[in-house]
Amino acid sequence: MRIALGVSYNGQAYKGWQSQPDGNTVQDHLEAALGRFATHEVSTLCAGRTDAGVHGLMQVVHFDTELQRAPFSWVRGPNAFLPPDIAVQWAHPVPDEFHSRASAVARRYAYVLLQSPVRPSVETGRVGWVFHPLNGEAMQRAASYLLGEHDFTSFRASACQAKSPIKTMQGIDVIRRGGKPQQPLEIERNSPHHFTPCYWRFEFQASAFLHHMIRNIMGCLILVGQGLKEPEWILEVLAARSRDAAAPTFSPDGLYFLGPVYDEKWGLPTRAPAYDWLP
Amino acid sequence: MRIALGVSYNGQAYKGWQSQPDGNTVQDHLEAALGRFATHEVSTLCAGRTDAGVHGLMQVVHFDTELQRAPFSWVRGPNAFLPPDIAVQWAHPVPDEFHSRASAVARRYAYVLLQSPVRPSVETGRVGWVFHPLNGEAMQRAASYLLGEHDFTSFRASACQAKSPIKTMQGIDVIRRGGKPQQPLEIERNSPHHFTPCYWRFEFQASAFLHHMIRNIMGCLILVGQGLKEPEWILEVLAARSRDAAAPTFSPDGLYFLGPVYDEKWGLPTRAPAYDWLP
Repeated sequence: MRIALGVSYNGQAYKGWQSQPDGNTVQDHLEAALGRFATHEVSTLCAGRTDAGVHGLMQVVHFDTELQRAPFSWVRGPNAFLPPDIAVQWAHPVPDEFHSRASAVARRYAYVLLQSPVRPSVETGRVGWVFHPLNGEAMQRAASYLLGEHDFTSFRASACQAKSPIKTMQGIDVIRRGGKPQQPLEIERNSPHHFTPCYWRFEFQASAFLHHMIRNIMGCLILVGQGLKEPEWILEVLAARSRDAAAPTFSPDGLYFLGPVYDEKWGLPTRAPAYDWLP
Repeated sequence: MRIALGVSYNGQAYKGWQSQPDGNTVQDHLEAALGRFATHEVSTLCAGRTDAGVHGLMQVVHFDTELQRAPFSWVRGPNAFLPPDIAVQWAHPVPDEFHSRASAVARRYAYVLLQSPVRPSVETGRVGWVFHPLNGEAMQRAASYLLGEHDFTSFRASACQAKSPIKTMQGIDVIRRGGKPQQPLEIERNSPHHFTPCYWRFEFQASAFLHHMIRNIMGCLILVGQGLKEPEWILEVLAARSRDAAAPTFSPDGLYFLGPVYDEKWGLPTRAPAYDWLP
């Protein structure tokens, strides 16, 4: 029988999702834990491979097994063998036609950015960081030019293995959290950085993403947000179909895979509801 | 001259705030970084010592120096020498009468709790965890009995050094975040844990707190939230003035020192605004 799992992890300690010969990837730890619970070797396929340092809130994998167990055993069992920063969230038997990657009709990611004169501390490794204030309206306008079907070659890493650079961007939302204007403090007025810290959360949904695509888009949106480029510059970058046209790849620290979107017929969760409250 | 600093840190890697002979406390790292920047030894006093594993969003310290520097230099300079999970957030010259601990008229803490059938993963070390659903109204009612001036001996660690167990609790807010009821999934109906994950955020403000006081109160509020005790049981615990009457000390993982409250005349920040968005 085929089982689908939802998996969450903090990517800081790992060399990305994909199994590697010298281990220490999320897939290596997950398959080792599943194997110990199942007492047979387990190979998983995932909905979206994440890079080193990128977090997963609802990665989805599937695997095949002859073992008959109540679904929740596939949560509790492997979790006893997984490191504290990786956990199976749910398990669900699925028909053999289900495929975690091929059945996904879309993917969702969030990028969390700290805007502050001071680098991250409490949230180090889990947020990107900018120390110049950003213009949210300009970033939202630039993002709107990426909606729809486009050739995203300009935002694609050279190592990307996707068959086609043409993807459909279904939505990008730019949301500011906190940092409402307040009476500026003496220190803020006198400092070179006279603004209140806040978080930005960028939510992306697309048919699929190319390697480094969100981190390359983030680099561009931040240039626009800082006023170094006009929102319409994104159109030039897109039209160039060249990696050289875009901004440098932004940090992986603030990137979260929110999970794949499947047809309702599979009966799988599409969100990790508690995590909507991450900044 | 006297300088006040706001400091934030993730407490996971440290043996608490207070300097220890073998180092690796937040104070040790802060004083080492300040000393390197100032090129003289710097001793700090803080508003509220935090235990091992407890986080600080706006700890406040003060120290004396002859060095004349622009205030923001006291942010940027030490931050270059601090580990990535500790950062000075602001610096402000203060009169010699200011004292980070003695001038604080109140302290604020938050406790963040994950309610989920599955242990934390992405947020491991930064949230407490319960796997039974909690009743927010019952916890809020229990908390209301702690408001005002009381002898908090029942919630006090044996190692507590405070002169008096009598403190004034000014506010406790119990806030649920996320996890709104949704169509239960097949797996949830069939599992022993048929509820949607969510976060709870508890905010405390008091004149001062005894050692382990919030973690001991949290243990009691959770028993009430799980229906194992009535809200009015808190009155018995309080009246007993005995540590044995209360619940076991709850985990430090979800505890955040939000910072002290000072008289406005000092002109210091009273909140770390970006962090209001922590779950």
